[in-house]
Amino acid sequence: MGKTIPVVEKITKANDQIAAMNRTRFDEHDIFSLNLMASPGAGKTSLIEKSIPLLADRFRLGVIEGDIATSLDADRTEAAGATSVQINAASCHLDAPMVSQGLDQLDLPSLDIIIVENVGNLVCPASWDLGTHLRVLIASVPEGDDKPFKYPAMYRGVDVLVINKIDLLPYVIFDMDRFREGVEALNRGVVTFPLSCQTGEGIGAWVDWVADQTRQTATL
Amino acid sequence: MGKTIPVVEKITKANDQIAAMNRTRFDEHDIFSLNLMASPGAGKTSLIEKSIPLLADRFRLGVIEGDIATSLDADRTEAAGATSVQINAASCHLDAPMVSQGLDQLDLPSLDIIIVENVGNLVCPASWDLGTHLRVLIASVPEGDDKPFKYPAMYRGVDVLVINKIDLLPYVIFDMDRFREGVEALNRGVVTFPLSCQTGEGIGAWVDWVADQTRQTATL
Repeated sequence: MGKTIPVVEKITKANDQIAAMNRTRFDEHDIFSLNLMASPGAGKTSLIEKSIPLLADRFRLGVIEGDIATSLDADRTEAAGATSVQINAASCHLDAPMVSQGLDQLDLPSLDIIIVENVGNLVCPASWDLGTHLRVLIASVPEGDDKPFKYPAMYRGVDVLVINKIDLLPYVIFDMDRFREGVEALNRGVVTFPLSCQTGEGIGAWVDWVADQTRQTATL
Repeated sequence: MGKTIPVVEKITKANDQIAAMNRTRFDEHDIFSLNLMASPGAGKTSLIEKSIPLLADRFRLGVIEGDIATSLDADRTEAAGATSVQINAASCHLDAPMVSQGLDQLDLPSLDIIIVENVGNLVCPASWDLGTHLRVLIASVPEGDDKPFKYPAMYRGVDVLVINKIDLLPYVIFDMDRFREGVEALNRGVVTFPLSCQTGEGIGAWVDWVADQTRQTATL
């Protein structure tokens, strides 16, 4: 298997070059960009759906949906009011060239925020820079409080942590202190938003943060 | 990237050869074997934990735990009463060579059942045959009813489907009919066990099925 190493290195290097180009495109158009990662079903599409109407009066949103199959997610975010493009991941993660193709399909001068929704996976997406400004991980309460310990690369590598489905805390075994200890050991002081996409609790703080970051990006 | 194809083909071929060897080892020792796959936090370790005491009076269990980090899962299944070995996946999925290494650490003549707990991931594990008799997928209610549509390769490729966390049905949006339609379109008539590892509801039917399969394997 030794032969695979140079090939993988070449691919990673090419990815990082294209990620840098994606970043330049975001910056040229004063667009704030997020790479949204999570397990399948943690609430990536739901968070985007709930955020769009709360941001739409101030900002114009674009969404790049990476999915293995169907355009279900892009249909949902488009219906919620964001220009949405679907890219066929055919893979366990998005990479920078896929995001670049997504950007080609969006009218960048007309947008303020682009959210890239990655493939549902706590492993592979952690290794691929997409060129976005920040990486956001959504953990969800029913997944259990041991996930930081078990998927450390993902928890270590993100800038923001959303803890979704806090409305389920009374019904599942989830020790918030243990979870937060696991997170802190890997990623001290990471910005964290506990919330529920179902009840709306906590969404306001998250949306305010996205709005602040978008304004800061535009004035840089 | 054309160069990677022959390398990948070679790796897949080698995997399948070792998977066949794993299968031979299971059969030589009349061991019934399962490859347990799911999203992170769907309840793989919990299902094994709950099943062990209900099977331990009749069968001797071994567990091969594939994890990226920590031995938390192996510690749990060992504490529940199964001989457990931890293999460091260092990858987004288990492959047949890793399982072979796990088998080397177990006393095969003393076992009736081996459960291989894969890495939490709905994408990559679907592509790797481990040589087990059957592949089991655990879906969990809070993940949402759209998962068969979004991860078709996984749903298409399994022999058994466990629907875990049915105790959360009153608290989340999950249309069981829509979910089952998605499953049936990909995998008609797949054996299905709705259950809750937290309340114990439905565990009996699952355990009875495992017991039946184990007896059948032993008499083949």
